[in-house]
Amino acid sequence: MKPSFNRRKFLQTAALSGAGLWTGPKLLASADLPFSHPDLGKSKWDLDTPALCLDLDKLDHNLKAASIPLQGSGVGLRPHVKTHKCPDLARMQIAHGALGVCAAKLSESEVMLENGINDVLMTGVNVTPAKIRKAMELRKKHPGFIQAVDNPQNTRDLQEAAKAAGIVADVVVDIDVIRRSGIPAGQPALELAQLVDKSPNLRFRGILAYDGGVQHVMGHEARKTRCLKTFEPVVDTYHLMHAAGLNMEIFSGGGTGTYDMMHGIPGFTDVQVGSYLFMDCQYLEIGGAKNEERFDDFEAALTVMTTVVNTNHPGRLITDGGSKAFTLNKPTGWVIGEPDFVYNAGSDEYGTITYNDASRSYKVGDPLEVIVPHCDPAVNLYDIIYGIRKDRVERIFPVLARGKSQ
Amino acid sequence: MKPSFNRRKFLQTAALSGAGLWTGPKLLASADLPFSHPDLGKSKWDLDTPALCLDLDKLDHNLKAASIPLQGSGVGLRPHVKTHKCPDLARMQIAHGALGVCAAKLSESEVMLENGINDVLMTGVNVTPAKIRKAMELRKKHPGFIQAVDNPQNTRDLQEAAKAAGIVADVVVDIDVIRRSGIPAGQPALELAQLVDKSPNLRFRGILAYDGGVQHVMGHEARKTRCLKTFEPVVDTYHLMHAAGLNMEIFSGGGTGTYDMMHGIPGFTDVQVGSYLFMDCQYLEIGGAKNEERFDDFEAALTVMTTVVNTNHPGRLITDGGSKAFTLNKPTGWVIGEPDFVYNAGSDEYGTITYNDASRSYKVGDPLEVIVPHCDPAVNLYDIIYGIRKDRVERIFPVLARGKSQ
Repeated sequence: MKPSFNRRKFLQTAALSGAGLWTGPKLLASADLPFSHPDLGKSKWDLDTPALCLDLDKLDHNLKAASIPLQGSGVGLRPHVKTHKCPDLARMQIAHGALGVCAAKLSESEVMLENGINDVLMTGVNVTPAKIRKAMELRKKHPGFIQAVDNPQNTRDLQEAAKAAGIVADVVVDIDVIRRSGIPAGQPALELAQLVDKSPNLRFRGILAYDGGVQHVMGHEARKTRCLKTFEPVVDTYHLMHAAGLNMEIFSGGGTGTYDMMHGIPGFTDVQVGSYLFMDCQYLEIGGAKNEERFDDFEAALTVMTTVVNTNHPGRLITDGGSKAFTLNKPTGWVIGEPDFVYNAGSDEYGTITYNDASRSYKVGDPLEVIVPHCDPAVNLYDIIYGIRKDRVERIFPVLARGKSQ
Repeated sequence: MKPSFNRRKFLQTAALSGAGLWTGPKLLASADLPFSHPDLGKSKWDLDTPALCLDLDKLDHNLKAASIPLQGSGVGLRPHVKTHKCPDLARMQIAHGALGVCAAKLSESEVMLENGINDVLMTGVNVTPAKIRKAMELRKKHPGFIQAVDNPQNTRDLQEAAKAAGIVADVVVDIDVIRRSGIPAGQPALELAQLVDKSPNLRFRGILAYDGGVQHVMGHEARKTRCLKTFEPVVDTYHLMHAAGLNMEIFSGGGTGTYDMMHGIPGFTDVQVGSYLFMDCQYLEIGGAKNEERFDDFEAALTVMTTVVNTNHPGRLITDGGSKAFTLNKPTGWVIGEPDFVYNAGSDEYGTITYNDASRSYKVGDPLEVIVPHCDPAVNLYDIIYGIRKDRVERIFPVLARGKSQ
């Protein structure tokens, strides 16, 4: 596959791009305290590979950039920690004004709550007795924990468990947008919200709706049109609930692809951005408001360092980064500085690069820096993320919720 | 996609199939000693999901079955731990007669060597100064550690590092079969072997060659034909080396798909089986010597338990097992007992099942048991594997080398 012009131009310049937009003072969170690790201070080019790296200047840019289009709108950010799985990064997001965070799963929520992140909206549902019991224990300990429901029986189960735990648990109703999670919009959603609202041990806090299919629509205008169209039944549901006198303090949805499109929606309170923090090949391709060719509102901060292990065939480099380092997501990784390289991570242990043109010759042992195909599942493969500033390891982010898919 | 007849028939009967072939005494390795875990004794149907499970009766069958076609041939097994990443399972493989194990990466080798697995052949190459230094430290401590090389410069680097470490390090030459790792067969391989052999601090032990592309060829006869044809240049290289008076005590290659095809090859010593221990959808499809429709030499022992979380649309079930529980490998997971189910793990956090026919009706909270698409990268997502006997958790396998892709 020939790389598109968009990708080509981007990869030629990515190595040079800085994150010069913001120069405000650095916020020090508790996790900025020294964390001992033998790789601190090391050049990223000397790291044992595959290694997952996060450029801290680009991270700083991304932390700030997501709020810009929302300023003055009253709409905030509730970043999704499923992307990074690091309490340290959640802490930085909150320090930059996030209303709290979202988490996909109960075990992931627990890691956040137990590591100092007080406000966690769990977007998935808990449906087994064990999970529901545990969720209520967590809520008892952490008043900022909010759970989602999407069916009446589950609501009754939550009510019973909250009662048994002696608490009033906070609940949002998840509205179905892409036939995945959620209750159908309109009357079924209204009735479910009313069921929550009248449950003595549940407190109805509002709604969430995730339009997953819209996030990667190519082109900002096309994406915005589809985003607002897709969201119409959800907005109608919001109005229904509002008219019924329900508490609508949370109306959460969207993501990185639609972060600058939803703040005009009546009652909408916050965007569940996730990938904006890191970026990846999937998002870089979709185009943004300022640049239809590349979505450059955010910087590509997350990369994998990999090493060339075999050069025995012309036009072909073998690396030590396969699917266990990148996942099988498409488009596959982009090698920074090498727009003609096509990276195939189809083998578990090896990457295979094919190319016609290279900026230089490569030999066995040379490191390469590669933007990941899809950040969320790639991060889930690593125990730590190296925080890099000016090519040096400045800090370590333990991926404490890695593997927490339960 | 309509499931094939092969898959259909298999999934209808898989729930019923036992592993009755073998009834020998159970081997107790050190890791069989009590390992405290709150889920011990629990039914697999009550596990918090997604959960990775290994049926111990089927495991016992697989541990024994791989040796059957090799009996009397003088060819042994050198199982690849990249598949399971568990020292406990490596120990069981050795207790069942394996010559030692293979490991893909240095960090993986280290976990094995430091956890009581004495004989580790690392099939990948170490090419950076840091990795080479560490490899020699490991070799100094563990005489059973054997490393691969596939180029002359790397051989000189290994020689220098071995000399600096004050050891003679054991080395095999990796022969290129699929243009991935390895040195081209024939004269280049011979010269590399001779370079190793004459390096004072290296000990040439033989060759390895992995024919990755052959493993999943459909149909036993077609696969065998291609396997032997593909291996011809490697066999010629073996003869060249043998005639040159080199030590050929190791001639290692093959995998689960060709485990019963290579013991007639002159000088061949051991098969690098990996997936045979677990099986997965990719291997079940290829057909075996006894059953051209299904490769049933080994039992499908590895499954993921997942839970239905949404049933709001007819012909559609949403589960809590997405790509972070299964990977994106194809064919996607097979739901045991439900041949008409098509499982899509394309979402990170959710699985989507579409179907026309179901054996029963499903409700939110119901558990499902799913055979994984591709075992190696799926195991790499989990911290533990539940060892299940008669549906109960009998033991826990910590996946100590999970994420060890360095």
